[in-house]
Amino acid sequence: IDMDDKTQIQEAIKSQGEVVRKLKAEKASKDQIDEEVAKLLQLKAKLGGDDGKIQFVLKTPKGTRDYNPKQMAIREKVFNTIVHCFKRHGAETIDTPVFELKETLTGKYGEDSKLIYDLKDQGGELLSLRYDLTVPFARYLAMNKITNIKRYHIAKVYRRDNPAMTRGRYREFYQCDFDIAGQYDAMIPDAECLKIVYEILSELDLGDFRIKVNDRRILDGMFAVCGVPDDKFRTICSTVDKLDKMPWEEVKKEMVNEKGLSEEAADQIGEYVSMQGGMDLAERLLQDPKMSQSKQACAGLTDVKLLFSYLQLFQITDKVVFDLSLARGLDYYTGVIYEALLTQAGVAPVVAEAQNGAPGSTEESVSVGSVAGGGRYDGLVGMFDPKGRKVPCVGVSIGIERIFSIMEQKAEACAEKIRTTEVQIMVASAQKNLLEERLRLVTELWNAGIKVQCICIFNPKLLSQLQHCEESGIPLVAILGEQELKDGVVKLRVVATREEVDISRGELVEEIKKRTL
Amino acid sequence: IDMDDKTQIQEAIKSQGEVVRKLKAEKASKDQIDEEVAKLLQLKAKLGGDDGKIQFVLKTPKGTRDYNPKQMAIREKVFNTIVHCFKRHGAETIDTPVFELKETLTGKYGEDSKLIYDLKDQGGELLSLRYDLTVPFARYLAMNKITNIKRYHIAKVYRRDNPAMTRGRYREFYQCDFDIAGQYDAMIPDAECLKIVYEILSELDLGDFRIKVNDRRILDGMFAVCGVPDDKFRTICSTVDKLDKMPWEEVKKEMVNEKGLSEEAADQIGEYVSMQGGMDLAERLLQDPKMSQSKQACAGLTDVKLLFSYLQLFQITDKVVFDLSLARGLDYYTGVIYEALLTQAGVAPVVAEAQNGAPGSTEESVSVGSVAGGGRYDGLVGMFDPKGRKVPCVGVSIGIERIFSIMEQKAEACAEKIRTTEVQIMVASAQKNLLEERLRLVTELWNAGIKVQCICIFNPKLLSQLQHCEESGIPLVAILGEQELKDGVVKLRVVATREEVDISRGELVEEIKKRTL
Repeated sequence: IDMDDKTQIQEAIKSQGEVVRKLKAEKASKDQIDEEVAKLLQLKAKLGGDDGKIQFVLKTPKGTRDYNPKQMAIREKVFNTIVHCFKRHGAETIDTPVFELKETLTGKYGEDSKLIYDLKDQGGELLSLRYDLTVPFARYLAMNKITNIKRYHIAKVYRRDNPAMTRGRYREFYQCDFDIAGQYDAMIPDAECLKIVYEILSELDLGDFRIKVNDRRILDGMFAVCGVPDDKFRTICSTVDKLDKMPWEEVKKEMVNEKGLSEEAADQIGEYVSMQGGMDLAERLLQDPKMSQSKQACAGLTDVKLLFSYLQLFQITDKVVFDLSLARGLDYYTGVIYEALLTQAGVAPVVAEAQNGAPGSTEESVSVGSVAGGGRYDGLVGMFDPKGRKVPCVGVSIGIERIFSIMEQKAEACAEKIRTTEVQIMVASAQKNLLEERLRLVTELWNAGIKVQCICIFNPKLLSQLQHCEESGIPLVAILGEQELKDGVVKLRVVATREEVDISRGELVEEIKKRTL
Repeated sequence: IDMDDKTQIQEAIKSQGEVVRKLKAEKASKDQIDEEVAKLLQLKAKLGGDDGKIQFVLKTPKGTRDYNPKQMAIREKVFNTIVHCFKRHGAETIDTPVFELKETLTGKYGEDSKLIYDLKDQGGELLSLRYDLTVPFARYLAMNKITNIKRYHIAKVYRRDNPAMTRGRYREFYQCDFDIAGQYDAMIPDAECLKIVYEILSELDLGDFRIKVNDRRILDGMFAVCGVPDDKFRTICSTVDKLDKMPWEEVKKEMVNEKGLSEEAADQIGEYVSMQGGMDLAERLLQDPKMSQSKQACAGLTDVKLLFSYLQLFQITDKVVFDLSLARGLDYYTGVIYEALLTQAGVAPVVAEAQNGAPGSTEESVSVGSVAGGGRYDGLVGMFDPKGRKVPCVGVSIGIERIFSIMEQKAEACAEKIRTTEVQIMVASAQKNLLEERLRLVTELWNAGIKVQCICIFNPKLLSQLQHCEESGIPLVAILGEQELKDGVVKLRVVATREEVDISRGELVEEIKKRTL
């Protein structure tokens, strides 16, 4: 260890120790103290080794993970299903940078803004990592003056949230977004988004699911007729949003005790948010003496009714529920909102964990079990347009990490062998000193577009070459020996049956193609 | 505009103005001043509008860009070619987070470290955006104790470099990496990496190309026998690296005047770095009275000889040149290094621009025209292993942005129509009030896996629906009218020929599949 480095680290430890002491004296939050203690330990670890080497902390950043080849194989499968669905619906795709100007993200996420990752000011523009794909999409539309597009975007987003990685909640995670921008007849694009969620969740075969639907205008109207003051709509809305993780009694307590709502108003809200149904419920509420007083609520209810008529045409009403307790956190929604949940036993909500994740748990996709969400955001593009021109938009975001977790668990449970390569054939030899001949054959096959593997050492053992095929699922082996070379053939071995047959060199490519269709 | 916001912005402008004045007074570098002026202008722009609205700067961060659907279509094509090649060679794939612990990147990139993006310290770990995919790969191997893998990784990396976007040089850009880790017989994996570059550049059809090969040990040996002091190897090496952008006279001047090398040593280097050849050159240099005095150089030369024998087996020697002037910047290379250049007229090096990009232009893939590079890095994994255990590695990185630029230019030049969706059929109607019937048919087709488009408004004009098909390359139209509904058929129109034929509803799916194979 370099003495200069050592001294520097020791000084850093000293000053970091003071930071921790100060926080403790100030009775700072446990989270804050934990973070600083973690930094301290990291520094101490560097001095650690007896051999005088600087010790690295060998890990990925908190809340992130690597994907190994098996996980990548699952990921590829999931993405294929999703992309195929998006393409079936005629969507184009775009991509945007992983970071945006900081101001692009400002004022779009309400309370969740504190979870945005900022880049260090190293001179130049101030930048933040994207928090979702919706705001960059809106920026893209405004910047390119696009008023009409159906697009999908699959990319990673970043949130400084409390990770719960075993449940598929990360700080770096994929979103698969599908959005329709443009002026269409009411509720048709909204219904198509729900159709997409339905198709994807069905095809991924994750067990039963439910799609909850509500409307921001119904929520706001409900708050108004229940006597919630205007300036408390947002904060009461985020309390309602906790209903999928807390019983009503606790939610009510938070409204009354923490947010200062009258008991009476809270009780009235409680009555509404317990309602679930379909088109019938929307019709009933349109007749409701109180609810019908709110113009906003009526507009929302009429649209929900219309929405359900399209859902019928699309044949997906069996999984969709109009649920007045659904209230998604993000500021930018203006109309219909929805969220999809897996309801199968094995993947049911885990309430305990969700409650532990206290700070930062107000983020959008709060409910454990939730795998997709979205809604209408007619005002967002206008926030980026110099003249405030609006472009109506509706979209849905599939949260892939949780789906990965489930698929991984399923793959493990059924001991299914996942192939991590697509190799069709292994070029092997039983005898020594045939490396050159193997490489010549490998080149022939590569040049013919065959996926080939070869253990590129002088004298590999035939048994270990065959074992490798069995373990990694390679279906064929081409075995070369002096005799085969003399005869101008290769011995083609089928790994599963151990059947062997001589094939002439000129017919090998066709034979491989035929057998690995 | 909110008065509080306005006041805040005005104060920010004031203090930013002082920053700029101070820098000017201190005669800071032009770059530094420019950066701060840019920030000042950004702030002023916010106050700009007469309508009192805060003005957004509607752009992506410096050195980054969005991909529109056409660019995405090209990107998908290029990725498909590359991934297909990687899979043909039996590679698995992994993914790593976009950021790493800052210390993971420390000490890996030599002078280029200043180009790393750091994240802001918001509590918790100190993070940086990945600078390449090689260091995360080495970290992954050490962390998971993997000593043997052939893997590819396609992802974005980040460098705070001087962008030259028209030439395909960005701050956020894709790398497509293929690496072989593990103990193999010498030079076989190295040769396979070159084979991969050869295959990909051939298949992408980008015109003629050349792959330069050299070896770090040959460079170091050459420096030693030419009398370069040990502690100047790296800095002289990075000067040699500029030979593809500067004439020898200027390179020599930099060595002698800036780096303090003796004129005699520089001249000797000059003689060597002008040498190009193949296996024969390696043989000749092994006999060279001076060069052969360096054990290191001899080891490198023997390996280059062996490498060329495998390149012959792989049938790729026609594009590979042993070139003693090749010197890649990154610290971690230990053996063979290589770089691929496009040599076709239209894509030749642009010397003027490269020279302008003075600061930050010392980065790895300096040479304009360079589209791939890599080499052997046997020590990198050991830097992450607590016990320093080494894993020999060799790899190659395909620089995709430049290839995108060329493909885009080509697509524009030949006015080729690039489809941005894969829609097979448009469901249209000639009459009003058939929206429901159209949606019913669309649902039928979606459920049968057909890629369908439908203009989801009540009364679209048939002509505009047909026009949309011609513009976006949709090959078929299903036209619905009262008569067709009564007869249980749809009118199937072939867009290209305008031929129309009635197809019974039950046979439609099969007919579409047949016609859009």
